[in-house]
Amino acid sequence: MSNSYGQLFRISTFGESHGPGIGVVIDGCPAGLPIEAAAIQAALDRRRPGQSELTTPRSEADTVEVLSGLFEGRSTGTPIGLFIRNQDQRSHDYSHIQHAYRPSHADYTYDQKYGHRDYRGGGRSSARETAARVAAGAVAAALLAHHGVRVRSYVSQVGAVAVPVSYEQLDLSLIDTNLVRCPHPETAARMADLIRQTRDRHDTVGGIITGVATGVPTGLGEPVFDKLHAELGKAMLSINAVKGFEYGSGFAGTLLFGSEHNDAFYTDEAGRVRTRTNHSGGIQGGISNGQDVYFRVAFKPVATILQPQQTINDQGEAVELAGRGRHDPCVLPRAVPIVDAMTNLVLADMLLRARASRL
Amino acid sequence: MSNSYGQLFRISTFGESHGPGIGVVIDGCPAGLPIEAAAIQAALDRRRPGQSELTTPRSEADTVEVLSGLFEGRSTGTPIGLFIRNQDQRSHDYSHIQHAYRPSHADYTYDQKYGHRDYRGGGRSSARETAARVAAGAVAAALLAHHGVRVRSYVSQVGAVAVPVSYEQLDLSLIDTNLVRCPHPETAARMADLIRQTRDRHDTVGGIITGVATGVPTGLGEPVFDKLHAELGKAMLSINAVKGFEYGSGFAGTLLFGSEHNDAFYTDEAGRVRTRTNHSGGIQGGISNGQDVYFRVAFKPVATILQPQQTINDQGEAVELAGRGRHDPCVLPRAVPIVDAMTNLVLADMLLRARASRL
Amino acid sequence: MSNSYGQLFRISTFGESHGPGIGVVIDGCPAGLPIEAAAIQAALDRRRPGQSELTTPRSEADTVEVLSGLFEGRSTGTPIGLFIRNQDQRSHDYSHIQHAYRPSHADYTYDQKYGHRDYRGGGRSSARETAARVAAGAVAAALLAHHGVRVRSYVSQVGAVAVPVSYEQLDLSLIDTNLVRCPHPETAARMADLIRQTRDRHDTVGGIITGVATGVPTGLGEPVFDKLHAELGKAMLSINAVKGFEYGSGFAGTLLFGSEHNDAFYTDEAGRVRTRTNHSGGIQGGISNGQDVYFRVAFKPVATILQPQQTINDQGEAVELAGRGRHDPCVLPRAVPIVDAMTNLVLADMLLRARASRL
Amino acid sequence: MSNSYGQLFRISTFGESHGPGIGVVIDGCPAGLPIEAAAIQAALDRRRPGQSELTTPRSEADTVEVLSGLFEGRSTGTPIGLFIRNQDQRSHDYSHIQHAYRPSHADYTYDQKYGHRDYRGGGRSSARETAARVAAGAVAAALLAHHGVRVRSYVSQVGAVAVPVSYEQLDLSLIDTNLVRCPHPETAARMADLIRQTRDRHDTVGGIITGVATGVPTGLGEPVFDKLHAELGKAMLSINAVKGFEYGSGFAGTLLFGSEHNDAFYTDEAGRVRTRTNHSGGIQGGISNGQDVYFRVAFKPVATILQPQQTINDQGEAVELAGRGRHDPCVLPRAVPIVDAMTNLVLADMLLRARASRL
Repeated sequence: MSNSYGQLFRISTFGESHGPGIGVVIDGCPAGLPIEAAAIQAALDRRRPGQSELTTPRSEADTVEVLSGLFEGRSTGTPIGLFIRNQDQRSHDYSHIQHAYRPSHADYTYDQKYGHRDYRGGGRSSARETAARVAAGAVAAALLAHHGVRVRSYVSQVGAVAVPVSYEQLDLSLIDTNLVRCPHPETAARMADLIRQTRDRHDTVGGIITGVATGVPTGLGEPVFDKLHAELGKAMLSINAVKGFEYGSGFAGTLLFGSEHNDAFYTDEAGRVRTRTNHSGGIQGGISNGQDVYFRVAFKPVATILQPQQTINDQGEAVELAGRGRHDPCVLPRAVPIVDAMTNLVLADMLLRARASRL
Repeated sequence: MSNSYGQLFRISTFGESHGPGIGVVIDGCPAGLPIEAAAIQAALDRRRPGQSELTTPRSEADTVEVLSGLFEGRSTGTPIGLFIRNQDQRSHDYSHIQHAYRPSHADYTYDQKYGHRDYRGGGRSSARETAARVAAGAVAAALLAHHGVRVRSYVSQVGAVAVPVSYEQLDLSLIDTNLVRCPHPETAARMADLIRQTRDRHDTVGGIITGVATGVPTGLGEPVFDKLHAELGKAMLSINAVKGFEYGSGFAGTLLFGSEHNDAFYTDEAGRVRTRTNHSGGIQGGISNGQDVYFRVAFKPVATILQPQQTINDQGEAVELAGRGRHDPCVLPRAVPIVDAMTNLVLADMLLRARASRL
Repeated sequence: MSNSYGQLFRISTFGESHGPGIGVVIDGCPAGLPIEAAAIQAALDRRRPGQSELTTPRSEADTVEVLSGLFEGRSTGTPIGLFIRNQDQRSHDYSHIQHAYRPSHADYTYDQKYGHRDYRGGGRSSARETAARVAAGAVAAALLAHHGVRVRSYVSQVGAVAVPVSYEQLDLSLIDTNLVRCPHPETAARMADLIRQTRDRHDTVGGIITGVATGVPTGLGEPVFDKLHAELGKAMLSINAVKGFEYGSGFAGTLLFGSEHNDAFYTDEAGRVRTRTNHSGGIQGGISNGQDVYFRVAFKPVATILQPQQTINDQGEAVELAGRGRHDPCVLPRAVPIVDAMTNLVLADMLLRARASRL
Repeated sequence: MSNSYGQLFRISTFGESHGPGIGVVIDGCPAGLPIEAAAIQAALDRRRPGQSELTTPRSEADTVEVLSGLFEGRSTGTPIGLFIRNQDQRSHDYSHIQHAYRPSHADYTYDQKYGHRDYRGGGRSSARETAARVAAGAVAAALLAHHGVRVRSYVSQVGAVAVPVSYEQLDLSLIDTNLVRCPHPETAARMADLIRQTRDRHDTVGGIITGVATGVPTGLGEPVFDKLHAELGKAMLSINAVKGFEYGSGFAGTLLFGSEHNDAFYTDEAGRVRTRTNHSGGIQGGISNGQDVYFRVAFKPVATILQPQQTINDQGEAVELAGRGRHDPCVLPRAVPIVDAMTNLVLADMLLRARASRL
């Protein structure tokens, strides 16, 4: 019972990888927001499978249908229903996994929790569910754009290949200029090589995505439990394959002393309050302080590998299992729009929540 | 408006560091649970200031008063109200910070969000609020104990001084045998030295706490948004000074290939399903799989340092500020019971939620 | 932002009367519940327009499509998505109401709240939204049937024509044997006459529906705010055109003295605790006591009448407006399945909530 | 698990009639609202027992202590904690009810739900819990006053003695000029007589309270489930002893035809949109339309009567029980501030929610 996210800008997703499709209902989008189906479609196109040689060859057009909530080019204030039909449901043979538990997948835990699982491509546990989040995220992005906020994330590490500079030293407009979605061209090329080599070895590789939000007004985030970074963390950790989250100085910040870590305030020439460093990641006491919000998200290597693995079946007997089908050797490039979407959803919700607290 | 945590085992905290006290209301604790006020007091005693030379000399007895919900030694099913009066409210002089924004504190953001702040010791943004969490966490721990679950966390790193082995190789019963709450005695001694040196330099130091939950049944965690690790992450990130969270293989897992990272299933001699490795941290698809749940939490160095710092006042003018008062040079030892508490609260909530999903 | 109902068995509805269709997502239905699309369709068929001469001639097939959550004849524990496409969207001429505010409709208030409204047949404020509730209610009814609970409601009054006996003296299996859905045949005939006469006068008439739930176990209802009757009341009052709710003795109970009103407990021959009277309506202290739960719901006459009425337009100018189109002279017969649905949804949610409170 | 009410202006109550006291935490009150403890105390004084010969002689000072959230005469935006210690806890003899189920009380259902009950004066099911609501309602009233909204309710019927005119024809400033809280002096006198006679017969009597809110802006209420009247209905039905709720024309409206019931719009001399009648009770489509909001609430006669009654004990055996102690012969006069409080709480929450839906 947790297929919804958000308090005031609230999404509820539904659908399985091999059922009729994937959908989402957005409740709480203010009326009058200009939003076109084309913007939603564009976001989905960034995420859809089959985009390049680096991702799964599974091909889905992922065409969004607007079921409700938009009228004459604007939101109406009523729930926005979006649906993406599954198309590539070729009659796969799932007999090899119908009774076997794939290692590091959700097969075993779903069986334990629900007494049953949808063995066709993972059912609800498939990352296909994130298509719904990306569609909803496009609406959140439109709301944020209306308020001057912009979210951009990029692949900053694949395996051990890492972008050598921080986000401020990058031109984020380059993110979509390569298949990896890394705005540092030389590193992007090395990442692509690593992904190809890994794919050819029938293996998979993980990495890190860095998220950046600019134009965030002061005052977003709700202490004490729904601190801005706590909600960002939850949202990121809810994405398939994510193993860690840090913001600002993050884990590396534990190595600094307080005298090094503190961000000194000053007033700039324009009279705006700034901090000289931003170890705080734009968030202090759980509330945005007007500086850039940035964070890093760790993705494990995809669990499905095209190699034989030892596991057990639902009778507890040892079996050998070899992955089949069409899978991503590295999810990072396609996860970038998902990180964007979840960040947009968190910020849109916090934007509406911040309003409600005014006299 | 986020002073509550949990869906079914739900806590709402209130109170400020320099008002009458700190309190919490627990709604949803099942009736009939044996719980004594002494167990709640014992948890508070682990967190309270003034325990040792390594922590703040500010001394608070932190005596809990049970306002409701317990009757004849058991929970009644009605809300459990707990209150801890502030005692050490000596008439400090806060004039130095009444108008100045302390670097990397919540002063500026609270002013921006609420148009006003309680300058007395941080008000609601003070870590003193976590006393309420610790009190509530003791009730959650009693519920979990009733179901065979046990949570223990410890300091695994201070500055660059780290425990050299993983949690399985430690005797967790040693956690409370030293002031640092690190169950690796030699490392604990080195950590204590580093904290003393840092204190004497009027500086502060951060570090990492590792949390471990054993006896967790399969099936806890609610896909897709409230995955077990997503809720743990949010809960940890909601603690003051936390900058990052990772579970299982975490950020290090991004350096492994899928063939290395996957956890092979097997059936042990007792017929129990196990995994040969536990990179998954006991959670697959957001749901506990019966293995140990473990994670790491990054704490930044405390922002209050007893050195002069450059900052601005609420008129935007540059001012110099020097910390005063009694503060922790390192929060890690006292944060251990807080990490315990939030872990207990997450697991208790998930335990109740898992029941509700049964036919 | 309130298009959802329920805490653990939670529905979220979406869609407008003249958009692509009406839908609902059910989150929290336990896995393994046997449920067929045919049962959902049967519930919709009871509600759909064009059933008889007493209701609107607007004809919609109201065919449900299952978008997710059911697999091999059972619920999977994932969200159940249901969608009903609008079919009878003939290009009506809405120019007469595009700028005029229909009396006692939601036109004016939607314009005020959202700065805009969907003038095509009421948009989201149309009772067509209740189709989604009826579809979801059929799933709730299946869950309740699994636990021995059965909900039946019927028309007990139309205008001043009322069933002369209480529900215990009726054979509720007769509800669907006449067009009015009143299990007292002579009264049903008089009600039908009144509806026909009203229709022929181009007017509308209201009435009362009585709801009855049998087999309700003890312990449903959550004090203090979500008392069982408080949730039933809210659910009923959320139905279009409802003006009042009472349970048990209701408003008439205010005329009794305590010595007359109290329900004496006794133990029956089977050793079961019973009450000699049931002024409590099966609920004491907000919690079901094992007796029948019953209540009454007041519906106003439909606001759309085929007569000229004085009103204003969105410029505040006086205009005359005459209803057009195909409307119900009396909604009561078609509201019976809606009352059933909302009752089932409340009880299903309370059933799951009651479980969560056990140790 | 339902001791909270409200989405954005949210209260959580705790405490039992015979424990340390009754409390409430208000989360979501905007910062900067001027509010004095004296205003909260004044509201409590209207509700407290022992006010007059018409109510229970049980005497409680009901002094409120502010535990958090107010600083220098204003709300801070953090949770407002309020606590009222129980004082009159004389060591009553509850042995007569410790094992017996009082008719039409919550004894039996609490035992069934929680496996246990607090037999001392009803514990949590006691109407004493409403003191917390009244305290919180005073804060809500301050927020509403800031926005021009005013709530007043009064006793309109006791037993069969009813005020003969509608609320518009009354001078509501007279409500507190008599013991019954009925602004129609002659009727008030007759009501007082009836209450005295009933008390002297050791019996109890019910009645009706009418609630009126003036100055309500357009746009409050959230379709489709949280319609303004649906939330008002739930809030009223959550008050002890309430059996029914109706708004506007209510149950009587079922006797009108649509042509009689519809409220014609017009623009008044000041250019303000009005309706010529107000059968809608100020709410259309679940949203306030700027007219007065009014409703009626039915209270059953109090269950505790000072006469012998037949019942059973917790072994299912027949026993005779006679009420003892100090009880109200009629709760209506003291329920007026409770109806006020819940109305204020609903409207304050809806006011904040309406803001969140703006672009």
